[in-house]
Amino acid sequence: MDSVGTMNTGQSILCKTSHTDSRPVASSLLVFLLLLERGMFSPSSPPARLLEKVIQYIDLHQDEFVQTLKEWVAVESDSIQPVPRLRQELFRMMALAADKLRRLGASVDSVDGGSQQLPNGQTLPIPPIILAELGNDPKKPTVCFYGHLDVQPARREDGWLTDPYTLTEVDGKLYGRGATDNKGPVLAWINAVSAFRAMEEDLPVNIKFIIEGMEEAGSVALEELVRREKDRFFSSVDYVVISDNLWISRRKPALTCGTRGNSYFTVEVKCRDQDFHSGTFGGILNEPMADLIALLGSLVDSSGHILIPGIYDHVAPLTEEEKKMYKAIDLDPEEYRNSSQVKKFLFDTKEEILMHLWRYPSLSIHGIEGAFEEPGAKTVIPGRVIGKFSIRLVPHMNMSVVETQVKQHLEYIFSKRNSSNQMVVSMALGLHPWIANIKDNQYLAAKRAIKTVFGTEPDMIRDGSTIPIANIFQDVIQKSVMMLPLGAVDDGEHAQNEKINRWNYIEGSKLFAAFFLEMAKLH
Amino acid sequence: MDSVGTMNTGQSILCKTSHTDSRPVASSLLVFLLLLERGMFSPSSPPARLLEKVIQYIDLHQDEFVQTLKEWVAVESDSIQPVPRLRQELFRMMALAADKLRRLGASVDSVDGGSQQLPNGQTLPIPPIILAELGNDPKKPTVCFYGHLDVQPARREDGWLTDPYTLTEVDGKLYGRGATDNKGPVLAWINAVSAFRAMEEDLPVNIKFIIEGMEEAGSVALEELVRREKDRFFSSVDYVVISDNLWISRRKPALTCGTRGNSYFTVEVKCRDQDFHSGTFGGILNEPMADLIALLGSLVDSSGHILIPGIYDHVAPLTEEEKKMYKAIDLDPEEYRNSSQVKKFLFDTKEEILMHLWRYPSLSIHGIEGAFEEPGAKTVIPGRVIGKFSIRLVPHMNMSVVETQVKQHLEYIFSKRNSSNQMVVSMALGLHPWIANIKDNQYLAAKRAIKTVFGTEPDMIRDGSTIPIANIFQDVIQKSVMMLPLGAVDDGEHAQNEKINRWNYIEGSKLFAAFFLEMAKLH
Repeated sequence: MDSVGTMNTGQSILCKTSHTDSRPVASSLLVFLLLLERGMFSPSSPPARLLEKVIQYIDLHQDEFVQTLKEWVAVESDSIQPVPRLRQELFRMMALAADKLRRLGASVDSVDGGSQQLPNGQTLPIPPIILAELGNDPKKPTVCFYGHLDVQPARREDGWLTDPYTLTEVDGKLYGRGATDNKGPVLAWINAVSAFRAMEEDLPVNIKFIIEGMEEAGSVALEELVRREKDRFFSSVDYVVISDNLWISRRKPALTCGTRGNSYFTVEVKCRDQDFHSGTFGGILNEPMADLIALLGSLVDSSGHILIPGIYDHVAPLTEEEKKMYKAIDLDPEEYRNSSQVKKFLFDTKEEILMHLWRYPSLSIHGIEGAFEEPGAKTVIPGRVIGKFSIRLVPHMNMSVVETQVKQHLEYIFSKRNSSNQMVVSMALGLHPWIANIKDNQYLAAKRAIKTVFGTEPDMIRDGSTIPIANIFQDVIQKSVMMLPLGAVDDGEHAQNEKINRWNYIEGSKLFAAFFLEMAKLH
Repeated sequence: MDSVGTMNTGQSILCKTSHTDSRPVASSLLVFLLLLERGMFSPSSPPARLLEKVIQYIDLHQDEFVQTLKEWVAVESDSIQPVPRLRQELFRMMALAADKLRRLGASVDSVDGGSQQLPNGQTLPIPPIILAELGNDPKKPTVCFYGHLDVQPARREDGWLTDPYTLTEVDGKLYGRGATDNKGPVLAWINAVSAFRAMEEDLPVNIKFIIEGMEEAGSVALEELVRREKDRFFSSVDYVVISDNLWISRRKPALTCGTRGNSYFTVEVKCRDQDFHSGTFGGILNEPMADLIALLGSLVDSSGHILIPGIYDHVAPLTEEEKKMYKAIDLDPEEYRNSSQVKKFLFDTKEEILMHLWRYPSLSIHGIEGAFEEPGAKTVIPGRVIGKFSIRLVPHMNMSVVETQVKQHLEYIFSKRNSSNQMVVSMALGLHPWIANIKDNQYLAAKRAIKTVFGTEPDMIRDGSTIPIANIFQDVIQKSVMMLPLGAVDDGEHAQNEKINRWNYIEGSKLFAAFFLEMAKLH
């Protein structure tokens, strides 16, 4: 997954767990007995029998599935470094995937992505976006899977213990760049489809794919394509599934039901374009930095509370049901704090931490452009400075209301200073929060499928970051979007030694198969 | 001149003037008549006759003096760019000067400057510092002149209208890099000495020179040499004269009688060494930027008043005599404001502006290291940030008292926030303010010499910046230091199209000669 401005340094919430990773992969027989025991369906019901067969097939073919992942990981489909060789690898990756889908029987359209102009003037081609479909039975629901096959850069010397482009299994962990983000989950979906195809079973749902190769580079060209295809490719789509984030735990599956949005602001204070010397001018100027510091200092207090009047007015009230959701999540705040290398959080309890990451807005000051930022001592009075801060938005905050509130607040603070400088506030970027309807059919189906395959209820989680693709699908095609992660919290997407557990990959393939069957039942 | 962190962009105070630059060079006869008219000495008194002869000599030889300046400007003695070729030019410049002084009859010692290690590991030799002396009559005072022969970088394509290393005269203005900073004034002093020598007249004072080639690069090696030579070369020095700054006017001479000092502080706030992602951590952290902004925001109010308790306690009280000094200075605040491209200053009157630049402390916030400072939008929570600010110190503020006041204040503000981050405040740099005793003999002599040569009282000015060399001499050798500028306010030191007016250069040479004679009279 990528979220706006994601960095390699961010840890994710880590869940307390007493499990070990050596738990054997559940055999198809065991799962079947489990299903029976839970009385979820009678042994003779067709979906149960079919799922049993599919699960058996996946277990039997798991080494083949791992082999395919190995082949895909071997392609250095790095979309970040603007190097022609890597761009060629990206094209090769997309061609491999298109071929794989064609061999499944899908009709595949590799849509030309055009080209990308880099800041240095260089032009690079954008890899095609794959639109594929398999089945168009009007009696079945159509589920569209979004995934991406580009990866973050990785070099052995960055601290990888194995070659990042050679999938290597150690203690049930499959190490390799892209293993969890996002080649593994894309293949898990394909594995699920291929199991039905291999057994010559009807697919329970119509399947569509939208697979891109530029997600890590900001999904260049994706939104435009989605808009263009709204009334064609997407017209028959009922549900969109994204599997591009992680569980909050090492062992307990999760369903993601919301992400925060983001309003990114710049506030410029200008005296003149040139800087001043603090010896020659210090003492007689309204210094832009002093104004800016006062403006930025008016935004948030030391307890993290945002001081902009009205900003909390539209935050969704906390329901009892939601409270229970946080309670159910198995997070050890102490372990999480330690793994984050933070001395103390603003909050001590699991519930407070999760709520302040997921369901309350937060304001972060990112930095100042135009001031002295190098090591050493320079006696400059910057003539023009730009402060940058952003507010993570939550339901039901309205972006344009927030924009007005921020501007009015800063204008008020600035007017009180009676400064002769000029101030300009702009909202540079606005991304809505995303919240799923967890009573929606596909969330119900996913919950049941998780229960069937993993024997547990999922953690109902949110993401504090913004995942723009969810909004793109929800806003443009206006269909239900679900995020159904397969990877464990410690998979290390974007980091060195990225991995997906064999268990997550194979059980994830089963999960998607079970999900197809549950969707068909609910439809 | 250079002051701590001087930049090319700082304008200096510009004086209202109704003069034009076309005023003809005063002829020796006119000056002589002026002297007579003012009754400063009888026409038959030896110093008057001698000064008359010297002035006549300087007028007659002014083209030779300009020619020498042209030869010196032709050497690209740039000490800023660490390029071996330029370092060679610096050595050539110092050798030219040593030769010139030897031909005047001075005994010259070119003291090896050692070498300089650059941040990139490269080593460059430091040009020698010239120590020279001419005369050691125990009955005469010994005046030591400090100057430098290195220059700021200059390239024609930066906006020079003439070749920066070809001294070019246009309308009485001699354009060229180093013309006013500081080759012209160094030569003016040499011209004055050479006039006495050429006429085979006894020098009225013993003359010493200390001339360096690394002033623009921070006077590397100077202080060490001064300390080493304290009891040898400097033991017989009674007065130090520096001519490395500018008048406050285009036409009215000035004497500089003080500079502000500087205490440069860093305040570091750290949560952890790595940054955070604002989606993943925003809402549960004491963000270091919020702490730092609050700390920096507690330092100064919007009227420029410093909020650190006790900071004004030791500021020298304003005397009536000092007030008169500001009144006497011919500055048009409106013109100054316009030339500074500033919409409004904190103060409207000439006196307030000058006092807040010269005799009151000021606090400037320079920037933040470790935060996001590039263009664009990055959703980072910086993990460790360092704020930088400095306080320009004035008499009689005590640097270590200021350090304690700043630290105590910031610790108090930080403690109120109850933050879990770590804060460290350091004084990175401390430079005392410098104030001259204007009742000292050399100030009296300089005033009289200015009156004689220019027919006016000088502006008694200060410099809001810190000029560390003045402190080095005052602190180490503990003798009277005077700053006697020759250049006009619009000379553009460090900027494109640097110049010295022929008038300033030639009258300046006469001024130094008159100063020698006045010093002898006062001794």
